[in-house]
Amino acid sequence: MISSKIIGTGSFIPGIKIENSAFLQSHFLNDDGSELAAANEVIIDKFQKITGISERRYVKAAHNTSDIAFFAAQKAIEDAQIDPETLDYIIFAHNFGDIHHSAVQGDMLPSLATRVKYRLGISNPNCVAYDLLFGCPGWIEGVIQAHAFIKAGIAKKCLVIGAETLSRVVDKHDRDSMIYSDGAGACIVAETLHQNVGIISHASQTFAKEEAYFLHFGKSYNKNEEEKVRYIKMYGRKIYEFAITNVPTAMKIALDKSGIAIEEVKKIFIHQANEKMDEAIIKRFYRLFNTPVPKEVMPMSIHKLGNSSVATVPTLLDLVRKGEIENHDVKEGEVVLFASVGAGMNINAIVYRF
Amino acid sequence: MISSKIIGTGSFIPGIKIENSAFLQSHFLNDDGSELAAANEVIIDKFQKITGISERRYVKAAHNTSDIAFFAAQKAIEDAQIDPETLDYIIFAHNFGDIHHSAVQGDMLPSLATRVKYRLGISNPNCVAYDLLFGCPGWIEGVIQAHAFIKAGIAKKCLVIGAETLSRVVDKHDRDSMIYSDGAGACIVAETLHQNVGIISHASQTFAKEEAYFLHFGKSYNKNEEEKVRYIKMYGRKIYEFAITNVPTAMKIALDKSGIAIEEVKKIFIHQANEKMDEAIIKRFYRLFNTPVPKEVMPMSIHKLGNSSVATVPTLLDLVRKGEIENHDVKEGEVVLFASVGAGMNINAIVYRF
Repeated sequence: MISSKIIGTGSFIPGIKIENSAFLQSHFLNDDGSELAAANEVIIDKFQKITGISERRYVKAAHNTSDIAFFAAQKAIEDAQIDPETLDYIIFAHNFGDIHHSAVQGDMLPSLATRVKYRLGISNPNCVAYDLLFGCPGWIEGVIQAHAFIKAGIAKKCLVIGAETLSRVVDKHDRDSMIYSDGAGACIVAETLHQNVGIISHASQTFAKEEAYFLHFGKSYNKNEEEKVRYIKMYGRKIYEFAITNVPTAMKIALDKSGIAIEEVKKIFIHQANEKMDEAIIKRFYRLFNTPVPKEVMPMSIHKLGNSSVATVPTLLDLVRKGEIENHDVKEGEVVLFASVGAGMNINAIVYRF
Repeated sequence: MISSKIIGTGSFIPGIKIENSAFLQSHFLNDDGSELAAANEVIIDKFQKITGISERRYVKAAHNTSDIAFFAAQKAIEDAQIDPETLDYIIFAHNFGDIHHSAVQGDMLPSLATRVKYRLGISNPNCVAYDLLFGCPGWIEGVIQAHAFIKAGIAKKCLVIGAETLSRVVDKHDRDSMIYSDGAGACIVAETLHQNVGIISHASQTFAKEEAYFLHFGKSYNKNEEEKVRYIKMYGRKIYEFAITNVPTAMKIALDKSGIAIEEVKKIFIHQANEKMDEAIIKRFYRLFNTPVPKEVMPMSIHKLGNSSVATVPTLLDLVRKGEIENHDVKEGEVVLFASVGAGMNINAIVYRF
């Protein structure tokens, strides 16, 4: 029975640190363009209490999404100790393309996967490079696609990247902008013939009824801004309700498929969207099994890194594997869950044994 | 042995017909901004002789890529006589997102696949919708991915769409703009247990050394235009040389894998990029087998429909299946090839038995 295993990880944490205090001078508005009633201190304080975010990272002006993806990919290849020429696929999850500093257009021609392949200098034409758009769950979905290609017998080794520079699509008049961050994470997914190791089961879902536009591209809240320019926008409250209702169920579907008991789950690597939301998801997930939430089950990086969309889960995995998140590690044989939710609205989960 | 079969097709041909004469008043420039030496009549005449294009289609102002994709998808679903709620995947190949009329930004949040799912009114969350960026070969790659999911046991029915509105990314000062067109094609790929039917073999390649940027997003040739706006740009001569060298080889890789003799190939559905280039590819492909090119092996739609990127192959297939291309049909049991080349630079081919 062929399965797939993560044999290396890498991440890139952009160098520009933006603390919450950087937003004290922001001119935040409601979606109708009116002034917010509260002072910025109060808005920021409430923001931090809910999301857990105290700082986030932005890329420098010279860097684009495909650049930081390349840095993360290099590290994953090095960590896996493989020859990049042996890769069968480069799967690149993002949602906006390369948005050059001070430009509004996303650039995806050629695909960002091709750009990374170019930077890696890979000559082998049979290394197929494509981009995948699936909201924040894009990196997990890329791992699932790599797994499918391996099971179908058309791949043995895939580089899966999640990278985004959300700092290039934020409306500075929208307080939700404080959530978003830049980042890149990558892994190498490889065929394994070992029984019961690597990807054990998975689940993916797309909710496209009224949820379809909960996250969307919209106008600035400042009605004086150029009307044609679009920014990342969300209906936060609706997403919160959607996520705490549907993510636990999707995670349970994946775990049920695996046949593994809830008590065996050692860690949950969840999309770093919002700390309170992530905690509520985990609580409801364990409630589905009538089990208390174990201590230290949920490593978090959101406090210092914010929400970098597709990059959060691979970055978090890389940091935990390399001992860079306090009180968290993963050992051979341990079972973990990966889970994400985001634009689409998409949800996915993987049950994984190291 | 599980395989996959196309059980329905659909396409949408935009209503605005643009004849070559529409470009007689164009102000074409060289890439350095200088005037072209030849008169527009001469440029257009030469263009038509090489590409075969006498007219192309543009969408009306109210339509975006995801709208015309929805129209094609509806027809494919109807043709396949399936309940859309039974779809396991919606795979949408494009390269620029929805670019609203007179906007410069592409909009892909949510993904175009989600937009189509929304328009189709599909409630089933297990129908997973994602976008795939793979240059012009995106639709064929989507079919290969659907096939992989079916072989891996995670899907039984997939909707695969290729749609693009290139009219929204053309530089009107670039004579290459005359090549580009808008269009949408779709198919339903379904599991089949019949031996030796449907997708027999396939091959995909990405050339990302110096070729990576042969097709790219670049500035207008008119140096007075807004510097930050990017358009689809190509190095035509380099692409021509690249394609006639590498596409025949990739097609041969796929055919060799299938074990099917060249004489059995009844039709080649090739990306409608440029008639002379397509003819040269086919000629070189048959030369690899020391076989003359059979008559009527290559149905063409480029004369009236131009090059609509990812949409050309599914549209051509739909038109041939429905008897709308003179002297061309496909019968049960017949073997055909699908082949494409485009930005990435990506190439792919499928050997298929009806």
